[in-house]
Amino acid sequence: MSDCIFCKIAAKDIKSATVYEDETAIAFMDVNPASPGHTLVIPKKHAQTISEMSADELGNLFRAVSKVAAAIKKALNPEGINILQNNGSAAGQVVPHVHVHIIPRKSGDGLLTPWKPQPAGDELAEIAARIKSAL
Amino acid sequence: MSDCIFCKIAAKDIKSATVYEDETAIAFMDVNPASPGHTLVIPKKHAQTISEMSADELGNLFRAVSKVAAAIKKALNPEGINILQNNGSAAGQVVPHVHVHIIPRKSGDGLLTPWKPQPAGDELAEIAARIKSAL
Repeated sequence: MSDCIFCKIAAKDIKSATVYEDETAIAFMDVNPASPGHTLVIPKKHAQTISEMSADELGNLFRAVSKVAAAIKKALNPEGINILQNNGSAAGQVVPHVHVHIIPRKSGDGLLTPWKPQPAGDELAEIAARIKSAL
Repeated sequence: MSDCIFCKIAAKDIKSATVYEDETAIAFMDVNPASPGHTLVIPKKHAQTISEMSADELGNLFRAVSKVAAAIKKALNPEGINILQNNGSAAGQVVPHVHVHIIPRKSGDGLLTPWKPQPAGDELAEIAARIKSAL
Protein backbone atom coordinates (compact mmCIF):
# COMPACT_ATOMS: atom_id res chain seq x y z
CA MET A 1 0.00 0.00 0.00
CA SER A 2 1.40 3.36 -1.04
CA ASP A 3 0.82 5.09 2.29
CA CYS A 4 2.00 2.24 4.53
CA ILE A 5 5.28 2.88 6.37
CA PHE A 6 6.10 -0.84 6.60
CA CYS A 7 5.44 -1.36 2.88
CA LYS A 8 7.89 1.49 2.28
CA ILE A 9 10.47 -0.18 4.53
CA ALA A 10 9.96 -3.48 2.68
CA ALA A 11 10.43 -1.66 -0.63
CA LYS A 12 13.55 0.14 0.74
CA ASP A 13 11.88 3.50 0.13
CA ILE A 14 12.40 4.16 3.84
CA LYS A 15 15.72 3.18 5.37
CA SER A 16 15.75 0.71 8.25
CA ALA A 17 18.33 -1.26 10.20
CA THR A 18 17.51 -4.47 8.35
CA VAL A 19 18.88 -7.70 9.84
CA TYR A 20 17.22 -10.36 7.68
CA GLU A 21 15.39 -10.67 4.40
CA ASP A 22 13.97 -13.52 2.33
CA GLU A 23 11.44 -13.79 -0.49
CA THR A 24 8.40 -13.02 1.62
CA ALA A 25 9.65 -11.40 4.86
CA ILE A 26 11.99 -8.71 6.12
CA ALA A 27 13.26 -8.04 9.66
CA PHE A 28 14.54 -4.76 11.03
CA MET A 29 15.21 -3.05 14.35
CA ASP A 30 12.27 -1.34 16.05
CA VAL A 31 13.20 2.36 16.25
CA ASN A 32 11.24 2.61 19.52
CA PRO A 33 12.55 -0.51 21.21
CA ALA A 34 11.01 -1.98 24.34
CA SER A 35 14.48 -3.37 25.08
CA PRO A 36 17.86 -3.51 23.30
CA GLY A 37 17.54 -5.87 20.34
CA HIS A 38 13.77 -5.40 19.86
CA THR A 39 13.24 -6.48 16.26
CA LEU A 40 10.21 -6.52 13.95
CA VAL A 41 9.54 -9.17 11.33
CA ILE A 42 6.97 -8.29 8.65
CA PRO A 43 5.56 -9.90 5.53
CA LYS A 44 6.56 -7.99 2.40
CA LYS A 45 3.02 -8.35 1.06
CA HIS A 46 0.68 -5.91 2.76
CA ALA A 47 -1.83 -7.34 5.24
CA GLN A 48 -3.42 -5.31 8.01
CA THR A 49 -3.91 -8.24 10.36
CA ILE A 50 -3.28 -11.98 10.22
CA SER A 51 -6.90 -12.41 9.12
CA GLU A 52 -5.74 -11.21 5.70
CA MET A 53 -2.94 -13.80 5.49
CA SER A 54 -3.27 -17.45 4.54
CA ALA A 55 -2.06 -20.18 6.90
CA ASP A 56 0.89 -20.75 4.54
CA GLU A 57 1.77 -17.05 4.54
CA LEU A 58 1.72 -16.91 8.34
CA GLY A 59 3.76 -20.11 8.46
CA ASN A 60 6.37 -18.53 6.18
CA LEU A 61 6.46 -15.38 8.30
CA PHE A 62 7.19 -17.43 11.41
CA ARG A 63 9.88 -19.43 9.64
CA ALA A 64 11.61 -16.04 9.32
CA VAL A 65 10.81 -15.20 12.96
CA SER A 66 12.45 -18.47 14.00
CA LYS A 67 15.69 -17.58 12.23
CA VAL A 68 15.81 -14.01 13.54
CA ALA A 69 14.97 -15.06 17.12
CA ALA A 70 17.79 -17.62 17.00
CA ALA A 71 20.20 -14.92 15.84
CA ILE A 72 19.07 -12.55 18.60
CA LYS A 73 19.62 -15.31 21.15
CA LYS A 74 23.08 -16.03 19.75
CA ALA A 75 24.08 -12.36 19.45
CA LEU A 76 22.62 -10.93 22.64
CA ASN A 77 22.01 -13.92 24.93
CA PRO A 78 18.88 -12.47 26.60
CA GLU A 79 17.35 -14.22 29.62
CA GLY A 80 14.07 -14.54 27.76
CA ILE A 81 12.35 -13.63 24.51
CA ASN A 82 8.74 -12.64 23.81
CA ILE A 83 7.18 -13.17 20.41
CA LEU A 84 4.21 -10.83 20.17
CA GLN A 85 1.90 -10.00 17.30
CA ASN A 86 -1.02 -7.60 17.82
CA ASN A 87 -4.13 -7.48 15.64
CA GLY A 88 -6.33 -4.40 15.91
CA SER A 89 -5.92 -1.23 17.97
CA ALA A 90 -7.80 -2.89 20.85
CA ALA A 91 -4.89 -5.34 20.96
CA GLY A 92 -2.26 -2.60 20.85
CA GLN A 93 -1.55 -2.62 17.11
CA VAL A 94 -0.23 0.79 16.03
CA VAL A 95 1.05 0.32 12.47
CA PRO A 96 -1.67 -1.35 10.34
CA HIS A 97 0.69 -3.79 8.57
CA VAL A 98 1.23 -7.18 10.24
CA HIS A 99 4.41 -7.17 12.33
CA VAL A 100 5.86 -9.64 14.78
CA HIS A 101 7.73 -8.18 17.75
CA ILE A 102 10.75 -10.14 18.97
CA ILE A 103 11.51 -8.67 22.40
CA PRO A 104 14.60 -9.68 24.38
CA ARG A 105 13.83 -9.81 28.11
CA LYS A 106 15.61 -9.81 31.41
CA SER A 107 14.14 -10.66 34.82
CA GLY A 108 12.29 -7.78 36.43
CA ASP A 109 12.44 -5.47 33.42
CA GLY A 110 8.74 -4.72 33.91
CA LEU A 111 7.82 -5.11 30.24
CA LEU A 112 4.55 -6.67 29.11
CA THR A 113 2.85 -6.93 32.48
CA PRO A 114 0.93 -10.20 32.28
CA TRP A 115 -2.70 -10.77 33.10
CA LYS A 116 -3.85 -12.14 36.46
CA PRO A 117 -4.61 -15.85 35.96
CA GLN A 118 -8.15 -16.62 37.03
CA PRO A 119 -9.74 -20.04 36.78
CA ALA A 120 -12.29 -20.34 33.97
CA GLY A 121 -15.94 -20.94 34.78
CA ASP A 122 -18.55 -23.18 33.22
CA GLU A 123 -18.53 -21.10 30.05
CA LEU A 124 -15.24 -22.68 28.90
CA ALA A 125 -16.83 -25.73 27.25
CA GLU A 126 -19.46 -23.58 25.53
CA ILE A 127 -16.83 -21.19 24.14
CA ALA A 128 -14.70 -24.14 23.00
CA ALA A 129 -17.70 -25.57 21.16
CA ARG A 130 -18.29 -22.26 19.37
CA ILE A 131 -14.63 -22.02 18.26
CA LYS A 132 -14.56 -25.67 17.22
CA SER A 133 -17.64 -25.26 15.09
CA ALA A 134 -16.02 -22.27 13.33
CA LEU A 135 -13.02 -24.37 12.27
CA MET B 1 8.41 -35.62 28.33
CA SER B 2 6.75 -37.78 30.94
CA ASP B 3 6.35 -35.04 33.56
CA CYS B 4 5.19 -32.29 31.18
CA ILE B 5 1.57 -31.22 31.55
CA PHE B 6 1.30 -30.08 27.92
CA CYS B 7 2.78 -33.34 26.63
CA LYS B 8 0.09 -35.09 28.69
CA ILE B 9 -2.60 -32.88 27.15
CA ALA B 10 -1.21 -33.61 23.66
CA ALA B 11 -1.28 -37.35 24.46
CA LYS B 12 -4.85 -37.05 25.86
CA ASP B 13 -3.63 -38.32 29.24
CA ILE B 14 -4.99 -35.08 30.67
CA LYS B 15 -8.36 -33.87 29.46
CA SER B 16 -8.59 -30.45 27.84
CA ALA B 17 -11.19 -28.44 25.94
CA THR B 18 -9.53 -29.15 22.60
CA VAL B 19 -10.67 -27.05 19.63
CA TYR B 20 -8.19 -28.07 16.92
CA GLU B 21 -5.70 -30.81 16.18
CA ASP B 22 -3.46 -31.73 13.25
CA GLU B 23 -0.40 -33.93 12.83
CA THR B 24 1.99 -31.67 14.70
CA ALA B 25 -0.12 -29.27 16.78
CA ILE B 26 -3.07 -29.19 19.15
CA ALA B 27 -5.12 -26.24 20.42
CA PHE B 28 -7.15 -26.08 23.61
CA MET B 29 -8.75 -23.53 25.92
CA ASP B 30 -6.52 -21.96 28.57
CA VAL B 31 -8.03 -22.95 31.93
CA ASN B 32 -6.86 -19.63 33.40
CA PRO B 33 -7.98 -17.35 30.59
CA ALA B 34 -6.90 -13.72 30.30
CA SER B 35 -10.19 -13.18 28.45
CA PRO B 36 -13.08 -15.34 27.19
CA GLY B 37 -11.79 -17.43 24.28
CA HIS B 38 -8.11 -17.41 25.36
CA THR B 39 -6.71 -20.44 23.55
CA LEU B 40 -3.31 -22.14 23.56
CA VAL B 41 -1.70 -23.77 20.54
CA ILE B 42 1.19 -26.14 21.22
CA PRO B 43 3.47 -28.42 19.19
CA LYS B 44 2.84 -32.08 20.02
CA LYS B 45 6.57 -32.73 20.08
CA HIS B 46 8.13 -31.42 23.28
CA ALA B 47 10.27 -28.29 23.07
CA GLN B 48 10.91 -26.00 26.02
CA THR B 49 11.37 -22.84 23.93
CA ILE B 50 11.35 -22.02 20.23
CA SER B 51 15.16 -22.37 20.28
CA GLU B 52 14.55 -26.13 20.33
CA MET B 53 12.28 -26.03 17.24
CA SER B 54 13.36 -25.83 13.62
CA ALA B 55 12.12 -23.02 11.38
CA ASP B 56 9.84 -25.55 9.64
CA GLU B 57 8.43 -26.74 12.96
CA LEU B 58 7.68 -23.17 14.06
CA GLY B 59 6.17 -22.48 10.65
CA ASN B 60 3.88 -25.49 11.04
CA LEU B 61 2.86 -24.39 14.52
CA PHE B 62 1.83 -20.97 13.22
CA ARG B 63 -0.10 -22.50 10.32
CA ALA B 64 -2.22 -24.03 13.10
CA VAL B 65 -2.32 -20.70 14.97
CA SER B 66 -3.63 -19.05 11.80
CA LYS B 67 -6.53 -21.48 11.54
CA VAL B 68 -7.46 -21.27 15.21
CA ALA B 69 -7.23 -17.46 15.30
CA ALA B 70 -9.53 -17.28 12.27
CA ALA B 71 -12.05 -19.52 14.04
CA ILE B 72 -11.88 -17.41 17.21
CA LYS B 73 -12.52 -14.29 15.12
CA LYS B 74 -15.46 -15.95 13.39
CA ALA B 75 -16.94 -17.43 16.57
CA LEU B 76 -16.40 -14.59 19.05
CA ASN B 77 -15.81 -11.49 16.90
CA PRO B 78 -13.36 -9.83 19.31
CA GLU B 79 -12.22 -6.23 18.74
CA GLY B 80 -8.62 -7.40 18.63
CA ILE B 81 -6.43 -10.47 19.04
CA ASN B 82 -2.95 -10.85 20.54
CA ILE B 83 -0.68 -13.68 19.51
CA LEU B 84 1.90 -14.12 22.28
CA GLN B 85 4.58 -16.70 22.81
CA ASN B 86 6.94 -16.43 25.81
CA ASN B 87 10.37 -18.05 26.01
CA GLY B 88 11.95 -18.31 29.46
CA SER B 89 10.65 -17.34 32.88
CA ALA B 90 12.14 -13.84 32.41
CA ALA B 91 9.68 -13.50 29.52
CA GLY B 92 6.72 -14.80 31.54
CA GLN B 93 6.81 -18.44 30.44
CA VAL B 94 5.24 -20.63 33.12
CA VAL B 95 4.80 -24.08 31.54
CA PRO B 96 8.13 -25.19 29.98
CA HIS B 97 6.59 -26.52 26.74
CA VAL B 98 6.25 -24.08 23.83
CA HIS B 99 2.75 -22.59 23.72
CA VAL B 100 1.22 -19.79 21.71
CA HIS B 101 -1.42 -17.69 23.44
CA ILE B 102 -4.29 -16.45 21.29
CA ILE B 103 -5.94 -13.74 23.39
CA PRO B 104 -9.20 -12.06 22.29
CA ARG B 105 -9.18 -8.38 23.26
CA LYS B 106 -11.59 -5.53 23.72
CA SER B 107 -10.75 -1.84 24.06
CA GLY B 108 -9.72 -0.83 27.58
CA ASP B 109 -9.61 -4.37 28.97
CA GLY B 110 -6.26 -3.53 30.58
CA LEU B 111 -4.55 -6.75 29.47
CA LEU B 112 -0.91 -6.87 28.38
CA THR B 113 0.06 -3.31 29.31
CA PRO B 114 2.46 -2.30 26.57
CA TRP B 115 5.91 -0.78 26.96
CA LYS B 116 6.49 2.96 26.74
CA PRO B 117 7.91 3.67 23.27
CA GLN B 118 11.26 5.44 23.54
CA PRO B 119 13.41 6.40 20.56
CA ALA B 120 16.47 4.21 20.12
CA GLY B 121 19.92 5.73 20.47
CA ASP B 122 23.11 5.28 18.50
CA GLU B 123 23.43 1.69 19.69
CA LEU B 124 20.73 0.53 17.25
CA ALA B 125 23.07 0.07 14.27
CA GLU B 126 25.64 -1.74 16.40
CA ILE B 127 23.02 -4.15 17.79
CA ALA B 128 21.65 -4.71 14.27
CA ALA B 129 25.15 -5.59 13.06
CA ARG B 130 25.56 -8.14 15.87
CA ILE B 131 22.23 -9.81 15.06
CA LYS B 132 22.94 -9.77 11.34
CA SER B 133 26.30 -11.43 11.81
CA ALA B 134 24.62 -14.18 13.87
CA LEU B 135 22.27 -15.05 11.00
